[in-house]
Amino acid sequence: MGERIVVALGGNALGKTPDEQLELVRNTAKPIVDLIERGCDVIIGHGNGPQVGMINLAMDFASNHGAGTPYMPFPECGAMSQGYIGYHLQQAIQQEMKIRGIDKECATLITQVVVDKDDPAFQNPTKPIGEFHTKEDSERIAKKRNLLFKEDSGRGYRRVVPSPTPLRIVEKKVVEQLVSAGTVVIAAGGGGIPVIETDRGLVNIDAVIDKDRACSLLAQDLKADRLIILTTVDRVCIRYRKPDQKELIEMSLEDCKKYIEQGEFAPGSMLPKVEACMDFVRNNSRGGVAQITSLSRVADALEGKTGTLIHA
Amino acid sequence: MGERIVVALGGNALGKTPDEQLELVRNTAKPIVDLIERGCDVIIGHGNGPQVGMINLAMDFASNHGAGTPYMPFPECGAMSQGYIGYHLQQAIQQEMKIRGIDKECATLITQVVVDKDDPAFQNPTKPIGEFHTKEDSERIAKKRNLLFKEDSGRGYRRVVPSPTPLRIVEKKVVEQLVSAGTVVIAAGGGGIPVIETDRGLVNIDAVIDKDRACSLLAQDLKADRLIILTTVDRVCIRYRKPDQKELIEMSLEDCKKYIEQGEFAPGSMLPKVEACMDFVRNNSRGGVAQITSLSRVADALEGKTGTLIHA
Repeated sequence: MGERIVVALGGNALGKTPDEQLELVRNTAKPIVDLIERGCDVIIGHGNGPQVGMINLAMDFASNHGAGTPYMPFPECGAMSQGYIGYHLQQAIQQEMKIRGIDKECATLITQVVVDKDDPAFQNPTKPIGEFHTKEDSERIAKKRNLLFKEDSGRGYRRVVPSPTPLRIVEKKVVEQLVSAGTVVIAAGGGGIPVIETDRGLVNIDAVIDKDRACSLLAQDLKADRLIILTTVDRVCIRYRKPDQKELIEMSLEDCKKYIEQGEFAPGSMLPKVEACMDFVRNNSRGGVAQITSLSRVADALEGKTGTLIHA
Repeated sequence: MGERIVVALGGNALGKTPDEQLELVRNTAKPIVDLIERGCDVIIGHGNGPQVGMINLAMDFASNHGAGTPYMPFPECGAMSQGYIGYHLQQAIQQEMKIRGIDKECATLITQVVVDKDDPAFQNPTKPIGEFHTKEDSERIAKKRNLLFKEDSGRGYRRVVPSPTPLRIVEKKVVEQLVSAGTVVIAAGGGGIPVIETDRGLVNIDAVIDKDRACSLLAQDLKADRLIILTTVDRVCIRYRKPDQKELIEMSLEDCKKYIEQGEFAPGSMLPKVEACMDFVRNNSRGGVAQITSLSRVADALEGKTGTLIHA
């Protein structure tokens, strides 16, 4: 087959502790290597919600409770999570390829993603991160560090950050160099480290970039044949969890638009995945397609046996 | 000139906080880009002592004092430090190249380094890491996690880990792919994430790999023309800090051996740097040379104006 495929992997599938992650990356590596074994060039983007949350919480807690360690900005925590997740994931893929006798390399690239400092998302931060605080503590920290806190589900106050649109993957040419050399690349971890362009060059900014949108952009940059967004179900459904639920085998861009207007896809869940697929299909002159499916059945999806195909 | 050069950069030159690091990487980028501007292919390895110490301390503190975050093994902290340092360093080098109109990429690769589980260093761990504990606390943690603690300079008990010899850089072929494509590569951060080979593939092990030895190995793998180890002085000295101190312009392998026998180089300081240089020169059939000099004068060293040259 020999397709060039960008796979977007959920951070929730990677576990909350290092032990859990080491275990789960082994399960993740198998279906990914199924694609590689079929001759595909695979680029993996992954989420980092639970992991960067854990790192940020630990760094904040240590800094606030007298460990003597410095305040760690959120983008730097994201860079740490790319190293932490990438290390386990590349090790598991290297091992799975070795078991199957596939002579290929796998590597993780630390990846920055440019966002617009005037993105409307900065007016309305919505993504909660880090530890829970009392109202008083949150107000004190908010003032000290110029941060925004919101009450979260009755459990206390948590910091919120915006989720702006990814505009440019800074290391895209490096990804292309490695893919061209036949290497399996892990990139844009957690949607990438968010940076803005300034007179002084790139500068970090507190934000969370949706990993599906970042993977869609990466797939466009790499002129990929296919973008596969992994989720918990084998196929996208309409009338989801209703008696007349229907699995979709394929959707044209027109179909996607229609279903979105009908409110078929939940915001913060299936909707951004469908939109990321639409973006890739729309901005790909080479006829690339997108698919939404589950990790365990990703090779079946490639062969058309499952998954929802999004096409022009 | 167009030499292929591996540069080993000290972790102490990178600062103890994210703000300090952001400032210092800008100063670091300039002399590095001086080499790139002269047409050299540059691969950067760096230390991570203060950074991985800070990350490990914060993760330990949070986990031990009720943040609800998991225990984070030392190699995973090392992977985080590669992401954290690599992000700042690649951003600064990208910016400095942009200012000078150099159309090249710069990227960080998460790098594992294989050590021997029977390395004698594992019998005598010497490198202190992480937070200070009371005797009682250290004994409790030692028992719980099967770790070794030692009394450190009258300030309390600290964990100690071994410093085994690096045997193989797992991602060396990927570094070669990027260097061949003209990209400036940051690799083997902190000496690499220490792993051992087992029936189940690579497995992490608590250790600190000397970054100069890891860079020497990387330079051998890449068949580099030159290994430059950066330190605080422009040139290696004999009779260091004595009235008749003498700067060395060059040393043959024989000279190195003689000076080492005479005890001219301090263990844990200049000695491992000289030994790393000797290893590279000895194991390089292509006539590669090594140099020890300061960061600010690295371009002068390349032109033979300063630095100590180590040759066969």
